[in-house]
Amino acid sequence: MVKSDTTAGRRDRLREALVAAAEDTIAKGGLQELRARTLAEKAGCAVGAIYNAVADLDELVLLANMRTLAALEHELTAARGGGDGSNTAETAIAQLVQLAHAYLAFAAANTPRWRALFDHQMPGRDIPDWYRDEQHRLFRQVEEPMRVLQPRATPKRRALLARSLFSAVHGMVRLGLEEKLQAIPVTALREQITFVISAIGRGMATETDAAQ
Amino acid sequence: MVKSDTTAGRRDRLREALVAAAEDTIAKGGLQELRARTLAEKAGCAVGAIYNAVADLDELVLLANMRTLAALEHELTAARGGGDGSNTAETAIAQLVQLAHAYLAFAAANTPRWRALFDHQMPGRDIPDWYRDEQHRLFRQVEEPMRVLQPRATPKRRALLARSLFSAVHGMVRLGLEEKLQAIPVTALREQITFVISAIGRGMATETDAAQ
Repeated sequence: MVKSDTTAGRRDRLREALVAAAEDTIAKGGLQELRARTLAEKAGCAVGAIYNAVADLDELVLLANMRTLAALEHELTAARGGGDGSNTAETAIAQLVQLAHAYLAFAAANTPRWRALFDHQMPGRDIPDWYRDEQHRLFRQVEEPMRVLQPRATPKRRALLARSLFSAVHGMVRLGLEEKLQAIPVTALREQITFVISAIGRGMATETDAAQ
Repeated sequence: MVKSDTTAGRRDRLREALVAAAEDTIAKGGLQELRARTLAEKAGCAVGAIYNAVADLDELVLLANMRTLAALEHELTAARGGGDGSNTAETAIAQLVQLAHAYLAFAAANTPRWRALFDHQMPGRDIPDWYRDEQHRLFRQVEEPMRVLQPRATPKRRALLARSLFSAVHGMVRLGLEEKLQAIPVTALREQITFVISAIGRGMATETDAAQ
């Protein structure tokens, strides 16, 4: 059965082609290479047709970033694994370290796409809920081990701690890979992350959170 | 005595005026507002004259960023203080927390200037040594407390740990203030930083660094 080529169907396919073109452009040269004209060429449409498929280039970047977030989340989920069933601090710390290593590996292997997640700015404009939700799913990966290390923390508190730990690892990876600061070799960075995250984990396990 | 208005003197004054113009532009609207034309207007010179005073706009940004780095370093030095003379882990952890709070306060009060330190990219070009040295002075602020927490670490190792800790705090501040992720209120962020940095400090103090 041949799918009827409705206007909506054509628009969906064009949208898909544009997101793929944006993803590819970001992966090769970063956000600064995004131009309506080259995207239109890659997707095989007129420049003006872009705006039938998406509201603007910002929406296109968000859609491309959504795919990067999904790919990253996939890696983090795989890295966290199911645990060994035990709920010890040691297991939780090992999970945190594995998550951090997976984050570093993803950033090192997909640097321009990963950078675009943070460098894309939309000053004065609201971020759509569907994008925010996807971002928060990343932090949530860290909540499970946090439950073991900070058992008395409320869910809200645990979510905040998870975001803080995610951010701390992000900072080490971001500044570690930063060429402007003379990048640290990935193996050395990996070892630093292991050391710092293990220290955080041990420190958390030895003291109950005062501010629950 | 009137200073003779040599060519070199005029160039120095123009350079100074241009750096001040760049600093002011970044402080008000961020890096993306920098344009040769508006800088020339602010500094009271022709657009072409800019390139007699500096090599290009990138050099101008580095010079403006140098001032931001110096201001930040000043705050960190004040925050670290001299300590109370005791070399206990507790004192060292308190110093780390004070440094991190000062970093957060500076970033919150000077967000566009602080962002410009990290967002300015010069792909494929070498960063001048004078700029790199200034950046590394920031990490060095963290080395003193690290000496107490990791007494057996080599100087090289201590420098790497200091950079990692600085980066972890940077990540918490950066993603914490990020509007795209729904910014965390500064007081909550401050408390998170206290908790996480104290945990790192305790964790480090309870285990000697394996990889010295």
